[in-house]
Order: sequence, then C-alpha cells, then structure tokens
Amino acid sequence: MSEFNSQLLDQFFAIIPAGGVGSRLWPLSRASTPKFLHDLTGNGQTLLQDTFDRLEPIAKGRTMVITGNVHAGAVAEQLPDLKSENLILEPSPKDSTAAIALAAAVLFERNPEVIIGSFAADHVILDQAAFEASVLEAIEVASQGNIVTIGVKPTEASAAFGYIQKGKKLKTATAYRVEKFKEKPSISVARKYVESGDYLWNAGMFIAPAKLLLDVLKANEPELHAQISELAKAWGTKDQVSAMATIWPGLKKIAIDYALAEPAAKQGLVAVVPGEFEWHDVGDFASIAELQSQGRKGNLAVLGSAKVLSDSSSGILVSDTNRLVALIGLEDVIVVDTPDALLITTKEHAQKVKSLVDALKQTGHSELL
Amino acid sequence: MSEFNSQLLDQFFAIIPAGGVGSRLWPLSRASTPKFLHDLTGNGQTLLQDTFDRLEPIAKGRTMVITGNVHAGAVAEQLPDLKSENLILEPSPKDSTAAIALAAAVLFERNPEVIIGSFAADHVILDQAAFEASVLEAIEVASQGNIVTIGVKPTEASAAFGYIQKGKKLKTATAYRVEKFKEKPSISVARKYVESGDYLWNAGMFIAPAKLLLDVLKANEPELHAQISELAKAWGTKDQVSAMATIWPGLKKIAIDYALAEPAAKQGLVAVVPGEFEWHDVGDFASIAELQSQGRKGNLAVLGSAKVLSDSSSGILVSDTNRLVALIGLEDVIVVDTPDALLITTKEHAQKVKSLVDALKQTGHSELL
Repeated sequence: MSEFNSQLLDQFFAIIPAGGVGSRLWPLSRASTPKFLHDLTGNGQTLLQDTFDRLEPIAKGRTMVITGNVHAGAVAEQLPDLKSENLILEPSPKDSTAAIALAAAVLFERNPEVIIGSFAADHVILDQAAFEASVLEAIEVASQGNIVTIGVKPTEASAAFGYIQKGKKLKTATAYRVEKFKEKPSISVARKYVESGDYLWNAGMFIAPAKLLLDVLKANEPELHAQISELAKAWGTKDQVSAMATIWPGLKKIAIDYALAEPAAKQGLVAVVPGEFEWHDVGDFASIAELQSQGRKGNLAVLGSAKVLSDSSSGILVSDTNRLVALIGLEDVIVVDTPDALLITTKEHAQKVKSLVDALKQTGHSELL
Repeated sequence: MSEFNSQLLDQFFAIIPAGGVGSRLWPLSRASTPKFLHDLTGNGQTLLQDTFDRLEPIAKGRTMVITGNVHAGAVAEQLPDLKSENLILEPSPKDSTAAIALAAAVLFERNPEVIIGSFAADHVILDQAAFEASVLEAIEVASQGNIVTIGVKPTEASAAFGYIQKGKKLKTATAYRVEKFKEKPSISVARKYVESGDYLWNAGMFIAPAKLLLDVLKANEPELHAQISELAKAWGTKDQVSAMATIWPGLKKIAIDYALAEPAAKQGLVAVVPGEFEWHDVGDFASIAELQSQGRKGNLAVLGSAKVLSDSSSGILVSDTNRLVALIGLEDVIVVDTPDALLITTKEHAQKVKSLVDALKQTGHSELL
C-alpha cells in the first residue's frame, strides 16, 4: 500500500456495533453483560477493548461505538479513550442495519466524504499487521465507489459461518468483485466451497463511503432510510432526545446482510478483500477453548481467577467466582462457573447452550438471562 | 423371636459413634460438617437422624452418641430427643476403639449388666423390620456371652468392604461363630468369598455385654483399658473435665477391628448374625447416586434444592447452594456444588475424590477441608 493516500485515511471512521447477547456463551454472557464486555482470550482485555485497540492504528481516535443504553457505563469504563460524541446509545435492539446506518448517517452529517468501516465488537483477530493491511486496501477500494467487505480465507469447512463467493478480480491489489453472499451452508456444501478456493468466510466487516451505503439503503429500505436520516439530522441538536424517543421504536429490525450487502452485491457494488489473518467469532465455549494457549492447567484451559484442582481433565473452565473448582477424569469438558448459574457440558455439545437459554426463557428464568 | 425376653431388651443401650469425615464425599462432607450430618438419601433426614430413628424402636430412649466436640451443636439440633447425659464429646478424634469403649465403660458404670450395640452414624439401611430382627437376635446371642456382629449378606463381589468368614452354626436361630475377619480383599478374592456363601460384609455393628467388651479390651490393650476405665469412673462427676483434659490426648488411636474384634474372634468369642436387609455405607458419590430413587430429573439424581436444567444427562447432582445448574450431554457425571467449592467428576472416578482431598491438604487449602 505504498501508494496509500494519507488524505484518504483521514476520511476513514471506524464503527463498532456492540450488540448481541451471545446466547451460546451463557451463563458468562448475559443480557446485562454480553460477550463483547468479557475477556474471552485471557489476555486481560475484553473483546470490545481488543476491537477498539485493533482499529486505533488506522482510526486514530476516529472510532464510533453504537450499543444498548444499558451498556453505556460498561462501555465508557472499558474504553476511556472513546469520545462521548462518538458513542451512540440504542434505547432497544433494532438489529445491525439500524445500528450501522445510524452511525454512518451521523458521521455523514459531520463529513459527507467519510468512509466508514464497521467491525463487530466480539470477534478475535490474531495478526494485527495483516488486519491493518486488509483494512487499508478495503478503504482504498471503497474510495473507488465500492462497498467492501473483508472476507477471511477459510482454514476449514465450517457450517457455522456465512460465505462470500468471489467474482472477477479487481485491478486493485488483492480485491475481487463479490459474486454472492451465501448463508451458513451445510457441512457438505461448506466442504465444496472451501475446496473450490472461490469462497471466503463472511466476517461481517463492511467498509464503504457513508454516502454509498446510505444510497443503497435508500434504494432497498426507503422508509428505514428516511427514519435514519431524520435521526441523523437531529443528532447532537436539542431535538436528538425527542427524535430518538419517537422514531427509534418504529425502526425495522433487519440484518445488514439482507438490507444492504446482498442487494448491493446483486448490483455489482460490493468488493471483497481476502483477509490473510487468523479470525475467530468466538461463537461458543468450544471455540474459546481452542483460543487458549496460555493459562492452561495441563490440558485444561482456564479463564478467570478460579482456584483449580485438576488431574488430567481436558477442556475449558471459565470462572466468574473465586470458588475452588476440582475436576477429576473429565474429557473435553466445558465448565462455566458464575455466582448464580453453573453450566457443565462438553465441547461436543457447545452449540446446544443456545437451546438451553431458550428453555430458560420459556420457564421464566429471565433473571438468569 | 417370640421367646424374646423384655428384661433383656431393657439391658440394651445403643451407641452411635459419629465420627469420620468422609473424604470421598468432599466438598459436601467437610471436617466441620461430616457425612453423618448430611441428608444423602434425599428423605429429608440426615444419616445420623436416620440411624437414631432406626434404633429407637429397640433402644426406646437408650441411645448414646459419641462425637467430636465441634459437632455438639449440630448433633443436639438434629437429635432433639437425645438426652444430654447420653452425649459424649471427644476433644479430638481417637479412632473407634476409644470412642466405643468410653461409651461402653460409661454405660457399664451406670449398669454393669448393660448390653451395648454400636452402629455407625453414616450408613443406610433400607429394611427396618429385618434390621430390628437382626438386632434382637444379636442382643440375645450377646446375652449368652458373645461379642456379636451383624454381617450383611453380600449382593455383589465388592472390594470396598471388609468380610466376615462364618464358622460353625450356633444353636441360636440364624447365628454363626465368626471364623475370621477379613480386610478389604481384591476384587478377585471378593468374588471367591461371595461365591462360597461363607462370607458376609462387615458393616461395623457390634453388640455385646459391656463387661465382656471391656474385658477383651483389657486383655489386648491394657493401657487403653485402664485409661478408659479412669475416664468412665470420672464421668458425670466433678472430675470429668480434668480427667478428659489429662487422659484423652494420650489415648492410643486404634480401630475397634484390631483392638477388639479380631483378637476376640481368635478366642472364639465372636458370633455373627446374618443381616437380611439392604445396607449401604454411602462411601462415595457413585453409591449415593445408586441410592436415589426419588428426586430424579430424567436420569439425573438430584440431592438438595438446586434449580436444575438438564437434557438427557445422567449421574448425580448434589447441591448445597441455590444456584441454577445446567447440564448438557453428560454421562454418569457427579457434580457437587457448594458455596466455596465445586467438584465435577464421573461415577467411574468417584473413589478418587479422596486423593483430591489429600492434594488439598498438601497444598494448604485447609479452609476447604
């Protein structure tokens, strides 16, 4: 990226939509303290802090966070460098389109030339240099009038992620036109995708001129676009509070993939930069266990400050208490110890935690969600 | 037992030595709240209460408990019908001979004709009528000048119990002379014992005239006998406290099997009544799981008041907290949830809990023992 234009970089503004509960990480992740507010790598920082820090070398103070208003205190505490003007609080969850579009529209009001980049608050990326290189390339491709996603080169056939089908190669260094976004496939289809070499994992990263993003929104979801525009115009004025109170509750709940990415791909407006870095969405406790290279007790990964007594047990212990946890003869176990709830399962069943949370909802245990 | 002499029954006095920590039941059973103070059957009563109630139809108020002085409050609370004159408190644990002999000697001072019967505080017996019949027969055989044990008919070849080898049949209904006490055998030896039909499980129950018991003690452990006699003479007098303070710390620690039962068997003084009842020593969590017929959540036995969310998991959950415990896809699991320590293992490894407790001792976690 030697030709990289520093003026272009000044137009960049990072957006971190910090939402989602992470049901598969219950009982650690709760409605009140979702996944992004936790240290799930054992590095001493939360996923949100890691995401903010990862973007900082490029964003240089230009990062906006949009999150639920119940998390205002936690986010402000975890991100002391986040400027208050760059924190948007949602009165209620309205899915990713409303969140990202409002952030983009507010930034567009401040600077019509802004190129925004949206990055999930709860993913793990392990090669900072490769990540930065991909973002810089994505900014450049975006500046040429594209919505750009960074697709992660698959390391295995996974049915847990959506895929991006590459189209023709662009002139720019490593980017491709996006042929199609593919929803989570079956494992056999995933295998074909990966073998073909034509597919990348959809890591939910979008880099685009805010103006282009909002134009595409206007074409596909005109009502939502109008509401978001009205909110953005009121933002930072005396009308902000009343506008949020009247408009926000009526916003359509729709994922950005459906409202923007897929329609834009059909119009040939989306490009993908293949990311050469290690990426994890930390979707369940099994994937957290895989991430742990430190803090192990034999074959047992340990997150948190628990006193642990384990013989040859393997798996992961996540502790939010200071109780002693003693494990004998367990294989691939998952233990999550919190003050009011204890989860015990195995790596094999890690994905089933979500249905357990559903069962809790149905049995009225809302205090534990 | 139609010929049973009610005068004989009046001479009977039950003794419950309530000691032992039950390391294999950690972290439920602790030095401060050992096994006998817990409800391990889920019937709403502790093992000590069950033992007291089981003896009451025969003992009719004549039951003595000997326990550590740290348990004085708990025992008094659990056994409101226990007379204070029938509670002996040990300043420190001195094994079973000292405990049972002191109780026998104190009762002998009160009534030289007394026939004592000693029954562990932490066993489970499921057929009350059969148990009573065995005790009544044992009292009768004891009154003829025998130390009588009640041996349990084995239901399987177990290496976890000691065995009693039957000798010649006595004239009395079902009793036999004891040929020999056998320590816990290997599993292959246990199989031979059980196949032969000549062996019974040693359930640690001894019924004997106190005088005979003390005479055998005098012959085999003369110093211990002298000390116990001195304590018994001081019992209930103004000298009791000072006698305990000076004599008790110097008592020899020896199990009643070595000090009394085995030497007496060699002299042909011991008889055994075969017990026809279901008996469990509740030695580990796997055996507790087997005991549970109620309070199951599917294939999961649940002891305690935990809220439980389990799919098809099997095994046992013992809870001493009111946390929610969620289990997914675990087989034969053992979970013991207490306020300051959590144990997770499997039935297969239930016996290993003891070595874990040993490891806790060695690592200085005495607050958790």
